[in-house]
Amino acid sequence: MAQTEAPFHRVAHQHLLISVAIVLTPAVLCAGPSLGLPVTIVADAPSAGAFPLVTAQGAAPLCYDASDHAGVLRAVGDLAADIERVTGRRPSAATTCPAHAQPVIIGTLGKSAVIDALAAAGKLDAADLKGKWESFVITSVPHPIPGVKRALVIAGSDKRGTIYGIYELAEQLGVSPWYWWADVPPKRRAQAYVLPGRYASGEPAVRYRGIFLNDEAPCLTGWTKEKFGGMNSKFYTKVFELLLRLRANYLWPAMWDNAFNEDDPENPRLADEYGIVMGTSHHEPMMRAHKEWTKRRAQYGNGQWNYATNSEALKVFFREGIARNKGYENLVTIGMRGDGDEGMVTTGSIESDIKLLEQIIADQRQILAEETKTDPARIPQLWALFTEVQKFYEHGMRPPDDVTLLWTDDNTGSLRRLPTAEERKRSGGAGIYYHIDMHGGPYAYQWINTNPFPKICEQMNLAHQYGANRIWIVNVGDLKPLELPIEFFLRLAWSPSTWTKDRIGEYTRRWAERDFGPEHATEIADIVSKYAKYNGWRKPELITPETISQPNYREAERVSEAWRAVATRAENLYAILPPEQRDAFYQLVLHPAKASALVAEMNIAAGRNRYFARQGRASTNAEASRTRELFKQDQAMSDYYNKQLAGGKWNHLMDQPHLGQFTWEPPRINSMPAVSEVLLADTDNYGVAIEGDVSAWPDHFGDAVLPAFDSFNRQRSYVEVFAEGTRPIEFTIEADKPWIVLTEDATPRLDRRFWIDIDWAKAPTGASTGTLSVRGKRGTVDVKVLATKASDEQARGAKGRFASLAGPIAIAAPDASKKVDVSGVRWEEIPDYGRGVSAMSIFPVTAESVLPPQPAPQLEYPVFLPRAGASQVTLVLGPVMDFVPDRGMRIAVALDDQAPQVLDIFADRAAETFLGRSWDAQTARDNARYLRSSHTVATSGPHLLKVTMVDPGIVLQKLIISSAQLPESYFGPPESAPAE
Amino acid sequence: MAQTEAPFHRVAHQHLLISVAIVLTPAVLCAGPSLGLPVTIVADAPSAGAFPLVTAQGAAPLCYDASDHAGVLRAVGDLAADIERVTGRRPSAATTCPAHAQPVIIGTLGKSAVIDALAAAGKLDAADLKGKWESFVITSVPHPIPGVKRALVIAGSDKRGTIYGIYELAEQLGVSPWYWWADVPPKRRAQAYVLPGRYASGEPAVRYRGIFLNDEAPCLTGWTKEKFGGMNSKFYTKVFELLLRLRANYLWPAMWDNAFNEDDPENPRLADEYGIVMGTSHHEPMMRAHKEWTKRRAQYGNGQWNYATNSEALKVFFREGIARNKGYENLVTIGMRGDGDEGMVTTGSIESDIKLLEQIIADQRQILAEETKTDPARIPQLWALFTEVQKFYEHGMRPPDDVTLLWTDDNTGSLRRLPTAEERKRSGGAGIYYHIDMHGGPYAYQWINTNPFPKICEQMNLAHQYGANRIWIVNVGDLKPLELPIEFFLRLAWSPSTWTKDRIGEYTRRWAERDFGPEHATEIADIVSKYAKYNGWRKPELITPETISQPNYREAERVSEAWRAVATRAENLYAILPPEQRDAFYQLVLHPAKASALVAEMNIAAGRNRYFARQGRASTNAEASRTRELFKQDQAMSDYYNKQLAGGKWNHLMDQPHLGQFTWEPPRINSMPAVSEVLLADTDNYGVAIEGDVSAWPDHFGDAVLPAFDSFNRQRSYVEVFAEGTRPIEFTIEADKPWIVLTEDATPRLDRRFWIDIDWAKAPTGASTGTLSVRGKRGTVDVKVLATKASDEQARGAKGRFASLAGPIAIAAPDASKKVDVSGVRWEEIPDYGRGVSAMSIFPVTAESVLPPQPAPQLEYPVFLPRAGASQVTLVLGPVMDFVPDRGMRIAVALDDQAPQVLDIFADRAAETFLGRSWDAQTARDNARYLRSSHTVATSGPHLLKVTMVDPGIVLQKLIISSAQLPESYFGPPESAPAE
Repeated sequence: MAQTEAPFHRVAHQHLLISVAIVLTPAVLCAGPSLGLPVTIVADAPSAGAFPLVTAQGAAPLCYDASDHAGVLRAVGDLAADIERVTGRRPSAATTCPAHAQPVIIGTLGKSAVIDALAAAGKLDAADLKGKWESFVITSVPHPIPGVKRALVIAGSDKRGTIYGIYELAEQLGVSPWYWWADVPPKRRAQAYVLPGRYASGEPAVRYRGIFLNDEAPCLTGWTKEKFGGMNSKFYTKVFELLLRLRANYLWPAMWDNAFNEDDPENPRLADEYGIVMGTSHHEPMMRAHKEWTKRRAQYGNGQWNYATNSEALKVFFREGIARNKGYENLVTIGMRGDGDEGMVTTGSIESDIKLLEQIIADQRQILAEETKTDPARIPQLWALFTEVQKFYEHGMRPPDDVTLLWTDDNTGSLRRLPTAEERKRSGGAGIYYHIDMHGGPYAYQWINTNPFPKICEQMNLAHQYGANRIWIVNVGDLKPLELPIEFFLRLAWSPSTWTKDRIGEYTRRWAERDFGPEHATEIADIVSKYAKYNGWRKPELITPETISQPNYREAERVSEAWRAVATRAENLYAILPPEQRDAFYQLVLHPAKASALVAEMNIAAGRNRYFARQGRASTNAEASRTRELFKQDQAMSDYYNKQLAGGKWNHLMDQPHLGQFTWEPPRINSMPAVSEVLLADTDNYGVAIEGDVSAWPDHFGDAVLPAFDSFNRQRSYVEVFAEGTRPIEFTIEADKPWIVLTEDATPRLDRRFWIDIDWAKAPTGASTGTLSVRGKRGTVDVKVLATKASDEQARGAKGRFASLAGPIAIAAPDASKKVDVSGVRWEEIPDYGRGVSAMSIFPVTAESVLPPQPAPQLEYPVFLPRAGASQVTLVLGPVMDFVPDRGMRIAVALDDQAPQVLDIFADRAAETFLGRSWDAQTARDNARYLRSSHTVATSGPHLLKVTMVDPGIVLQKLIISSAQLPESYFGPPESAPAE
Repeated sequence: MAQTEAPFHRVAHQHLLISVAIVLTPAVLCAGPSLGLPVTIVADAPSAGAFPLVTAQGAAPLCYDASDHAGVLRAVGDLAADIERVTGRRPSAATTCPAHAQPVIIGTLGKSAVIDALAAAGKLDAADLKGKWESFVITSVPHPIPGVKRALVIAGSDKRGTIYGIYELAEQLGVSPWYWWADVPPKRRAQAYVLPGRYASGEPAVRYRGIFLNDEAPCLTGWTKEKFGGMNSKFYTKVFELLLRLRANYLWPAMWDNAFNEDDPENPRLADEYGIVMGTSHHEPMMRAHKEWTKRRAQYGNGQWNYATNSEALKVFFREGIARNKGYENLVTIGMRGDGDEGMVTTGSIESDIKLLEQIIADQRQILAEETKTDPARIPQLWALFTEVQKFYEHGMRPPDDVTLLWTDDNTGSLRRLPTAEERKRSGGAGIYYHIDMHGGPYAYQWINTNPFPKICEQMNLAHQYGANRIWIVNVGDLKPLELPIEFFLRLAWSPSTWTKDRIGEYTRRWAERDFGPEHATEIADIVSKYAKYNGWRKPELITPETISQPNYREAERVSEAWRAVATRAENLYAILPPEQRDAFYQLVLHPAKASALVAEMNIAAGRNRYFARQGRASTNAEASRTRELFKQDQAMSDYYNKQLAGGKWNHLMDQPHLGQFTWEPPRINSMPAVSEVLLADTDNYGVAIEGDVSAWPDHFGDAVLPAFDSFNRQRSYVEVFAEGTRPIEFTIEADKPWIVLTEDATPRLDRRFWIDIDWAKAPTGASTGTLSVRGKRGTVDVKVLATKASDEQARGAKGRFASLAGPIAIAAPDASKKVDVSGVRWEEIPDYGRGVSAMSIFPVTAESVLPPQPAPQLEYPVFLPRAGASQVTLVLGPVMDFVPDRGMRIAVALDDQAPQVLDIFADRAAETFLGRSWDAQTARDNARYLRSSHTVATSGPHLLKVTMVDPGIVLQKLIISSAQLPESYFGPPESAPAE
């Protein structure tokens, strides 16, 4: 089945909006847009046809119908407050429009007499409201009612449609959805005009869009306790408002030690009033918190959370939940897992378990029907196929057709399963339960934002294209500090076809502009993209002193430098931002960037400490001190976040220990990466270390040989000479060949570094050997330099190719010289995805699999191989799962015209798939997968490496060709450019 | 072929000597005996028939024949000096005996006219001298020559026989062989009498007994440079004298950066004069140091150390060596390895390599014949089957029959191969090249003595019984600080049938008595046995913070306590010893005991630091400090050894870095085990840790469950409550069952420990569960206590059996309730071997293999298993190699009357054997091997575990029966006693 990736119905609106946007003036373009409508509708100055929302004369009055939804009326109050926040002028808000004014008329089709009248009179085109889900229109209407010259109309198709319209105007005015949750200061405008045009939201792509507050200790629990006295309605109304401002509509409340409905009876009532559809988490059926059971289990039969032994009591428990909440808008979780967030106790076999689970669901639906007097097929329900539950489905269990199948990711952001063509026909459809925070296997990540937008986009686009679009709910941990991925996820859920992979950069820049203004938006967008990208390389909790290679590829230095750069840029901006923006900037930009950088740098410093200790460098101790200093800085940043930021408003939200994670569990407290020390003797002994080797000389048994140089890649390498004791060292260093260029590094450092470059003009053609000699009291340490210079013929043959005369060849996936499309199926770039600048994947993502020898979309990389014989090709891939059942995840690799080798990430399904033997293994930690194949060529020199699609869904990041074991490193050899 | 373990010819002499010893007075018994003759022959006071060596009137004159061997004359001088050292009186030494004196006549049969005359006259029974190798007799002879009433005669069968006799008297007098090399102070005697009797040495069991000075940087090189100006004859004569005093005769000189024959031409001349047979190391053929090649390779053909390409030049090189040294007594290494101590460059196949090697040996023998004008079959030669060389032999290469095959150990003290019956027929016989120091694979151990006598004895007894007794040479590194195993190895080489496994305790006590007197001999012997035993558990270089388990079995504490006890005992003795003994005691006892203890304790402290960090204990930092303190103490001990000990005499001999070994190579400098830190918050938060778990509560996901208690094993366990911050903590701890006995540990420690015992009188029969509750501000942490009390029937069934009602059963191998011998083949205890009190092995070691169902020697262990079903039996074995070719190393295990399962350590020969895939793996590091088998029983309760011999050579240390995965630990569960 090949779904087309054809535009779907929201695109029409977009075209309309974009055509409007074209006429905007440059000044308007500079104003911060919202992330809802992809166009700016508010201006500071009057223009032809613009509606005067706030002028020197005052604010336009807000008018609504008293019989409209309570949630709409409440939101009108928010709008009045927001207008005042921005302009200092608070509009009146009343059920009647004052005569002679130009009012804002706000109402829901079917609930507002004025709106209904406007529609009936043809003054308001209600075509995209009538019968629509959560849609709104904002437009000026001349003479809407007698005596009124013109009104700005915000009309909703339903309750949330109107509310979203209200908040869209607020956001456009300059009140960030995060004004309270991240202290984003409202924009200041003396006046505000709504530009002429008709601004329609269209319907959301995903019907239910929500978040799951989870893993809520120590942070959210500590904060809500101190700030609100618990997870009561004072807290939850803040959440509801945020969700609505982000055009979300669905919530799974916190449940570790909380029971939403019991902790504060106002919680569910206000959720409904605000307009939030409530659910319960994937393992809490029938609107009941598991805590309601554990607190009172003794009152229920034998107290066992086991339907095989205690079904009657459990039915009572379920019924109570539905009876209590039936008056509100719910999306009911059904099914049953074990006692708490764990697997069900088995009845003996999967067959009998399924039978029991089918009975449970049948009973639950009967209760639903009895309590609500409604056909259960008309009550929104979901069955969450979380962790082990999926196996019941795969084993044949089928819930009623109207129940939404809630598929999940692998807890680290890769979707495990998506609907098949057959499943897409189900009336209940499918949804996704996604994670950007985890407390559980394969490992916890609860501290900071580690979720780059390109990966969320890549995965959720799969969900969208494969039709899992009834529900998108995301586990957001403590909510803060995941502000960015929460909003991105929800904005995607509204319109995945707006925020495609190619527009993530624009999204991020617009987010930065909305919350911090245009001046630094590009820089801020780059900082937040980079820190999240780097955290995506490997989550901070999983970085150890061994993760990043010290000796190879200058990897530790390069990673450190990348982190330091992003942290420094954030610090520099912080220093020059207006004071009122600093709190928001700290929590949204500076803290995550710098605190993440500290963790990486701390582990790299500890790694360098151990590497130096092993080599016997006196500088070992300086790296230990640096590790300690970074460890203290980490604590200082958490302390600032908790105690100083926004006057202590967010105390406890940075309580999460994150240093020293040994299992899937987060650490109990932060512990510093262990560091070694050396005792410095009163000696002027020295040692010599070289790139590419953990050893040091003299003393080490083997030869000192620098990584090979070749004229195609023009590598640079280094030698370091270090003191072993307290005294200054004396030595000379000299090369024995004129083509070896030796320069001392000017950076201040304890040990002396000498760079080795090759003067290729002077080097002889072919393989040459030179020697660097370090001479002094320790005799002579010789370091071998192997350099190979291409012959003219080799140079001609290699031109434009990824070439090597010695070591491995590494190629960035998008650097293909040629892309072959087949029937519109094509390799496309996913900008900013993964470890490199971008990655390549197949589009449309629903393309049919194609096995050689059938023609398939192909990437071609011209290479120049250093030697004949066997080479190993390593593909570095995204951490995708086998989301199409029983297919694996395949790709084909060939050299020249050899038969393509079909490689399957899931060749060993038992091991590789979710919950398989290695589900918590390196792949999950590396956030990458690897496929290796061996290819033999008869000659060195020019060849063509071809990577051909088999299954869509694979993401290709990097290709490495090597004929020898690669040195240990996290990223492998850096990519090279084609030879010139 | 089953060699009998019958006594061999030296036993007759021993019986004679022991019959003499019976008449010794108690006073004499207290005098320190030598380690040569197993009887004391010198007394302080006159007694009937005793020869007055030194009296108040003076010292008996020493007489010798001027035409005796120069080495004998030189040794006479040493005797004169030794007598003066002991008594303050220097005897005259002359070629004529002064009239009327009672002289000491010293001479070699055939070289001393007096001795020859005594023999001819029947005054000296020369039966055990004539034609014998290196034998001597010490006895009083009345009227030996006209005018002399009585003489003490020291007569040798040959040069070294006489010299050994001289040094035997010196040692008996009280001059330790180590008087110079370890500053052992000579005993003080005013008078000395040689007891009446005839003291005959007999012949040595092994013809060539020697040491190999190797791996001689930084220590020996630094020391000799400073002390002697290099490895010249000033240094080597000290070595020669030591060797002769230890009855050794053979030396491979240092060769890392040295050339014995060239560095000082006096070296070979004096070696020969002293009486030392010179060789060159296993990889240096034809009496040439490899350095002689590397220094001047350009003068030899193409300069390649490759017989395939440079044979004529190599022949010249070889010929020069023989020509130079042919005048001296040599044992010539033949064959050829690679350029330096590495494998030969292959010629393409093993067959062609063998062909080349055969040619090399043929050429070498031709050179030998030509240069010495001697039949090469009469020139002692060896071919060392070191590392990869053995494969040529196993592939069929056979050197001439007169060449001694020098088999080797696996570099860590386990013999790789021993002669077969066929090979024992060879005229050249076989020998052993053994290691008590290593610079190479599987790992270097060059720092300190890590060689327990029982293991050396067990292995060298194999060599002896299997007929590898032509040469025993041992790699001794820098010589110091391996004084103890060097002497033990050489004493064993002289008489393995004297120093059997059962007399090691006696040997060690006698060594201690000889060098430190009787008062503390037992204590000193125990200290040196224990530190070596503990170092044998795992060499200090290989201990890491992870080696010893922190949470399980109190392993880290128990190992720490064992080490601290031995170090403290050594310190206590040091404090009370007479000042003149302290230098010797420091270098032979205190330093190795305490410095080894520091390394173990340092790593355990660092391990505890990381364990505490993971749990979030404030006390984490104290363990980091303790690690740092121990690290400094380690350096301080090395500094004392180098700079203060004996006035700085041994400077540089403790220069070997030993902390921070990451590969086979020793570290370049000492680096501290890495330690973590925590930042202490101003909080009174606390956590709870329990035995058996790395986690801590609250916060940890899983339940806190103590290791199971049962009434058979009456385990004790503990819970610790620790502060997380700087403030005092407040909590209560309480048990909910009367049978749980909770007592707080009284030892001062930062964290509070509560011991949990079970009051079995109060506990109900069967399985019970109790709870310890730790209550306070962090809520309640519940710790589960599972206790099982035997029913009366169970108690009856378990009586006298190794029993459990819950966890594993661990049994010390010698605790068998029954031993079944078959035809004299039997399991015997090897006292003090390995990890426990002793181990069991098959004797005679040359017994034939026997496979079930043939009856074989068996050990029976009555057990009481906690449950029916499958149990895993783990045998903890010695680290033996498969020294009999093509047989593996097998043992059989059975429960009850089930068919015995034959297990083979070398079932996977490619992986397990030397240089196999795992040759450097855990086995070598653990100094133990493990065999596991699974056994199923139909009932819980009484069963019989049977371990049955298949192949001799296996050493059984411990047995573990478990039905679940054992917790991680180094030693496994502690052994239990049978149920009462």
